[in-house]
Amino acid sequence: MGERMTDTALSARLSFLTEIDRLKGVLRASPVADGSRRENSGEHSWHVAMTALVLADHAGPDVRVERAVRMLLVHDIVEIDAGDVPIHLEVDAGAQAEKERAAADRLFGMLPDGQAGEMRALWEEFEAGESADARYARAVDRLQPLLLNLAAGGGSWIDYDVTLAQIDARVGARVARGLPDVWPEMRAMLAPWFEARGR
Amino acid sequence: MGERMTDTALSARLSFLTEIDRLKGVLRASPVADGSRRENSGEHSWHVAMTALVLADHAGPDVRVERAVRMLLVHDIVEIDAGDVPIHLEVDAGAQAEKERAAADRLFGMLPDGQAGEMRALWEEFEAGESADARYARAVDRLQPLLLNLAAGGGSWIDYDVTLAQIDARVGARVARGLPDVWPEMRAMLAPWFEARGR
Repeated sequence: MGERMTDTALSARLSFLTEIDRLKGVLRASPVADGSRRENSGEHSWHVAMTALVLADHAGPDVRVERAVRMLLVHDIVEIDAGDVPIHLEVDAGAQAEKERAAADRLFGMLPDGQAGEMRALWEEFEAGESADARYARAVDRLQPLLLNLAAGGGSWIDYDVTLAQIDARVGARVARGLPDVWPEMRAMLAPWFEARGR
Repeated sequence: MGERMTDTALSARLSFLTEIDRLKGVLRASPVADGSRRENSGEHSWHVAMTALVLADHAGPDVRVERAVRMLLVHDIVEIDAGDVPIHLEVDAGAQAEKERAAADRLFGMLPDGQAGEMRALWEEFEAGESADARYARAVDRLQPLLLNLAAGGGSWIDYDVTLAQIDARVGARVARGLPDVWPEMRAMLAPWFEARGR
């Protein structure tokens, strides 16, 4: 009996792991660093997890980097059903949040009960952005596309005609909340690009 | 003085994070699950990190899943310089290992000293495959392409004309070492595909 229950749980886990492969087909607004194509949300999730590890010394003393990494690994899975919403695009936030909740129900719901609840709780904690771990994870998630756009010569900043004031408001505030000593340095790296374009 | 040193370390970290973006351009032998294209090593690294989280209940009691996740996030970074070697391709293992060591020197060497050593130690532990954490990470890394090939209708098994006996020897042994109760179930899922092809 115990063995049969384990097999069922394992089957569910393997089905979930095959299903989430579809995150590799969700395209984001940002390009990869060489500008050759748009980044997908699967490879983005790896890159932000690495960013959380590499910038660990810049996290606050109350941040558990390992939990932030878990959050970053799961944070975009809902995009498989709900799609990625570029930060510089105006959307109906309420409708998008509803789509993401339905996606979380379906996708995390593929897992055995206890594990479904754990994964969903990590995603909800990330979305709420209130815990120290979530603030760090959200700062990392906003920082990474800045590196890519800068390396690619503008990327989605050009596509959405973004100004430095918009970066400060939509990106900088969130980066500064989780990575306070990183934001001034990052901003200094970005500013010349915007100044050169008169934006 | 302290502040200046911090800035230098941060700069090095941001350069490293931009450099490792190139892992998204390294193509593996396995396809993504819908068979539409080959998987890249960046998105693979996310998928195996998720696999390590999702299969945590099947890890041995001495496995620290969080360390296995870290290993899986860094394990393929050397491929940026050394390339991916498909498991079913015969290569000069000594020459490949030398290329990977040189890649580790250059890539992890971009980080501040202490951190470079930590990342390199994680990669070396994974490669050695002796610790409980590394055995789990290596089992996960071998399991994931089985799910993709199966979902895609054969994938690299067709390209390399692979037999079930080869899977048992090159893949099954390693999966069984880190995920002993998962391998029999996974093998039962794979066997019909090979039997149908008379392989």
